[in-house]
Amino acid sequence: MTTDRLTDDLFRAICEIPLIDPHSHIDPLSPVARSLDDILGYHYYTELAHSAGLSQEPLRSDVPPRERVRAILGHMDRFDNTLQYSWFLDIARTFLGFEGDRVTVADTDSLCDAAERVFGQENWEGHVFQKSNLEKIFLTNEFDDPLEGFDTSRYVPCLRTDTLVFQIKQPEVKQRLAKATGIEIGDVPSLKRAIGKLFEHFTGKGAKACAISLPPDFTPSPQTYSVFWMLAEFCADFRLPFDLMIGVNRRVYEKGVYQGQDLFDQRCSLLQYRELFNTFPSVTFCISVLSSGMNQELVSHAWIFPNVVTCGHWWYSNVPAYIEPDLRARLQAVPKTKQIGYYSDAYKLEFVRPKYDMYRRTLAKVLADDFVRPRRLSESAAVELARLVLRDNVRRIFNV
Amino acid sequence: MTTDRLTDDLFRAICEIPLIDPHSHIDPLSPVARSLDDILGYHYYTELAHSAGLSQEPLRSDVPPRERVRAILGHMDRFDNTLQYSWFLDIARTFLGFEGDRVTVADTDSLCDAAERVFGQENWEGHVFQKSNLEKIFLTNEFDDPLEGFDTSRYVPCLRTDTLVFQIKQPEVKQRLAKATGIEIGDVPSLKRAIGKLFEHFTGKGAKACAISLPPDFTPSPQTYSVFWMLAEFCADFRLPFDLMIGVNRRVYEKGVYQGQDLFDQRCSLLQYRELFNTFPSVTFCISVLSSGMNQELVSHAWIFPNVVTCGHWWYSNVPAYIEPDLRARLQAVPKTKQIGYYSDAYKLEFVRPKYDMYRRTLAKVLADDFVRPRRLSESAAVELARLVLRDNVRRIFNV
Amino acid sequence: MTTDRLTDDLFRAICEIPLIDPHSHIDPLSPVARSLDDILGYHYYTELAHSAGLSQEPLRSDVPPRERVRAILGHMDRFDNTLQYSWFLDIARTFLGFEGDRVTVADTDSLCDAAERVFGQENWEGHVFQKSNLEKIFLTNEFDDPLEGFDTSRYVPCLRTDTLVFQIKQPEVKQRLAKATGIEIGDVPSLKRAIGKLFEHFTGKGAKACAISLPPDFTPSPQTYSVFWMLAEFCADFRLPFDLMIGVNRRVYEKGVYQGQDLFDQRCSLLQYRELFNTFPSVTFCISVLSSGMNQELVSHAWIFPNVVTCGHWWYSNVPAYIEPDLRARLQAVPKTKQIGYYSDAYKLEFVRPKYDMYRRTLAKVLADDFVRPRRLSESAAVELARLVLRDNVRRIFNV
Repeated sequence: MTTDRLTDDLFRAICEIPLIDPHSHIDPLSPVARSLDDILGYHYYTELAHSAGLSQEPLRSDVPPRERVRAILGHMDRFDNTLQYSWFLDIARTFLGFEGDRVTVADTDSLCDAAERVFGQENWEGHVFQKSNLEKIFLTNEFDDPLEGFDTSRYVPCLRTDTLVFQIKQPEVKQRLAKATGIEIGDVPSLKRAIGKLFEHFTGKGAKACAISLPPDFTPSPQTYSVFWMLAEFCADFRLPFDLMIGVNRRVYEKGVYQGQDLFDQRCSLLQYRELFNTFPSVTFCISVLSSGMNQELVSHAWIFPNVVTCGHWWYSNVPAYIEPDLRARLQAVPKTKQIGYYSDAYKLEFVRPKYDMYRRTLAKVLADDFVRPRRLSESAAVELARLVLRDNVRRIFNV
Repeated sequence: MTTDRLTDDLFRAICEIPLIDPHSHIDPLSPVARSLDDILGYHYYTELAHSAGLSQEPLRSDVPPRERVRAILGHMDRFDNTLQYSWFLDIARTFLGFEGDRVTVADTDSLCDAAERVFGQENWEGHVFQKSNLEKIFLTNEFDDPLEGFDTSRYVPCLRTDTLVFQIKQPEVKQRLAKATGIEIGDVPSLKRAIGKLFEHFTGKGAKACAISLPPDFTPSPQTYSVFWMLAEFCADFRLPFDLMIGVNRRVYEKGVYQGQDLFDQRCSLLQYRELFNTFPSVTFCISVLSSGMNQELVSHAWIFPNVVTCGHWWYSNVPAYIEPDLRARLQAVPKTKQIGYYSDAYKLEFVRPKYDMYRRTLAKVLADDFVRPRRLSESAAVELARLVLRDNVRRIFNV
Repeated sequence: MTTDRLTDDLFRAICEIPLIDPHSHIDPLSPVARSLDDILGYHYYTELAHSAGLSQEPLRSDVPPRERVRAILGHMDRFDNTLQYSWFLDIARTFLGFEGDRVTVADTDSLCDAAERVFGQENWEGHVFQKSNLEKIFLTNEFDDPLEGFDTSRYVPCLRTDTLVFQIKQPEVKQRLAKATGIEIGDVPSLKRAIGKLFEHFTGKGAKACAISLPPDFTPSPQTYSVFWMLAEFCADFRLPFDLMIGVNRRVYEKGVYQGQDLFDQRCSLLQYRELFNTFPSVTFCISVLSSGMNQELVSHAWIFPNVVTCGHWWYSNVPAYIEPDLRARLQAVPKTKQIGYYSDAYKLEFVRPKYDMYRRTLAKVLADDFVRPRRLSESAAVELARLVLRDNVRRIFNV
């Protein structure tokens, strides 16, 4: 993959570590792609194609899937420099038998045909798990998800709480909450009872985390006793880690494609979470930051706060240009037991492997440069460090 | 240049690409240096010498040019570690036949003599164009520039609008505008007519862009219907890209040398431009950021907004320490058709070559490390990617 | 140390340069460790162990030192990835004859015994100076330090002014000031007289700098004529450089271990110091920034302000992941005479060597990659550049 033998050796050894993917958007009832449209419908491709000139017309839901694929592939030669394109090329090669150098619009029909054939194979889901060396993967479940019909030892439930925190005043959300818990919400105590019910339901079904994404100007505080603060209390009571994904501004590009409208504001600080981290010493906060500019704050907080853990490389920071410096700082300054290396954030299982491969290559490079070559670790000890951040920490921190 | 053969090969191949330099401060009526003083009068040298201890006395205009040169060269051994010094050394070697290792004050007379001899050669301007592999270069013209007396196919006009936006209330500026357009400004409609005239004049003379530099706290908004907003409307009407150079605080160091007084505030966000980008989907905004800390925001905006394009490496970010990480992120995450690789920002044509060389070396290194070695691109495909960001995008985006 | 011969050669040559360490917290009356507890009591180890799960119980002062050491070593396998661990390993190898690969809890007794034996040797202090190639080291003295009982040519006094600036209104501080100066403070003139006395006392005893650490929201201003502004005036009068250590928020993690409670807010700008830098052109401000995100502002300010000097790599930025990019930018863009490369910040002399070694390795790498390989400097010229930032600038700027 590179011309550096040590990095390649480390990469191969790291790939042997079975994955527990601690954050994704997989639908456990439909975890794999059924067509190439399911792959290229991932917002990375629609938004890059749109950004590079594709109108939103071909992305409409009433357009035949193959034509949507053709439109996106038709613009791919404008963004085939990106890492996101590389993930797609990996998928085409690994799963669809693609053997060319570049995917172009001319490959539309053959790739679509291959996808139909391959994705329709018996136990395709199992095959993807095996090919991805994947053992378990965390979900992101809406609060009223029944959590039924799937194997929760493979698909680990996680209570996503954005709706509860930011839309609790909407009648429709109140109704959904009432329906899910049997409790009509009128005041703080009833809200608390309802949320308690959700935690009981989720943990009873094997949920291992509570999660939320937060805007850059969010500052949790007990003064405005909010749903968010309540969630932290329940995380303490139910011994659930709380995944905080910090820094996303929703709908900045108003006419962007679906899920391709959000950005961030680099002027955000973990100092905003000072009171939260101090108030809940027993809650493990697994922190993702959207901007690489916040990584040093994350490193420094995880360095001194026992309950702050670094978590993955999120979205706009999920390219090697940012993973490498961010990871380097974490490995140099944060206790190794407090680092959750990566998560796929995937919507379809086929993306687990190429995204983790990108991370594993970067990890191999950092281990080679910062640990093995300076003789701080042997090769095998470096692989053990990789195992810790990729797997063992996930198991211990989330208790899976 | 380096000890890496692949990088060197890529560098040499990239140097073959004829340049269209999309931003400079060249005076087309006096585009080349006439003396060494014209070279060392560039603010990079006066400000570094001053910062390193040179008083402002020898920089006064009544000091004989050769003595000014001697004073600056006399301090150069205090800043000969800088990249700016390297540009000067390149110029001395490429154009003045200098063969030493370091330029010191002892070289003053021989270099001044060489400069007089060489810069006075017939068609020196043409020679510099040829030696720099330069095809066209953009100017930065004040709004009342007659745009006459030069070849606009070689020197591409560009409407610089700082004065209009930030000094329109000054009587002198109103007079200049009245003189240039024949319209006395009293209210918004008359102002709009006058600015419309300017756009007609400029585009009639082959202008290919509108440009402005903006302070870190600037937030364009239609609520305060401003000259800036009007300019964006005219850019839409006249299909001109709008170069936004974001983040400069003027006159921070009040007693600094000419053009050596400005700095920035890292607490600036592209979120401030949200409404602008949403309101003018048909205007291409070519964004330069002064602080490398804003590069990830720029990358992310260009990744999803169709009308946001990354543009060059500006001023305090124009050293390899910042170009390399910033460029790496752009090449990994922004559609390749939406990247304007570099501009020289030069005041004299002699600087085009050394500044582009610095960029081309960095580009060669990033292409080698991130594309060719990981087998994402062949060497020739990597050079094609370089051609796109250095030349083809400039031609397409600015319609030259 | 690395697999790169050039970097190793440069590292070895750089290690030959005798050190003048311009900032530490050494107690000159007790400059070296007397036990392993003195080494592991450094807040880096207590805070990392605590962050990794150690309760504060074993850190209490009534716990026998050896048990405290055992508790910290018992958690070291959770943070033996960190650079801070590497410093400890270096100390164990260099000074205590440790020959293993990793220090674990099983080494507690043998290391403690070795420490007692070794640290108790005659003239241990002199041995550490010699082994560290250390010539002089700056102290950080409280304003009422008598500065007696030690050799001020070896231990250079420095007036630390945090207490004066931030706690002057406390009766106890007023009393201490009165006792130290013989002046009862009631109004601005009496305060000024008292502080003048301190400057006389300190400079009379060979103090070479005034120093302070400042929170991220601090903005000095003459409008609120403050102790801080007064100190800048006295620095001008007494020709003392003023070390500003910018960006620390105290007691963010309220229940953290001693000295392990402080963090920063990345939203801080050197623009806040604009008026200060302009008002005191004759005072050299040696600036440390706590967040690497401020390094570009520091580089740019030192690039144009004659009185701004870059200084070291502080605390949360004192790991190679941040030293390397920050140093690279400084060496590329700041006059070389305006860079103070490093200081140890040490509490015990044994830390000078491992911390400087970390810096020297990074410096060797940057010099190899950015100067020697691109043929901008010969190897010996690169070592001269290192000598300037490590030693000669310290001597000139602080007049030692």
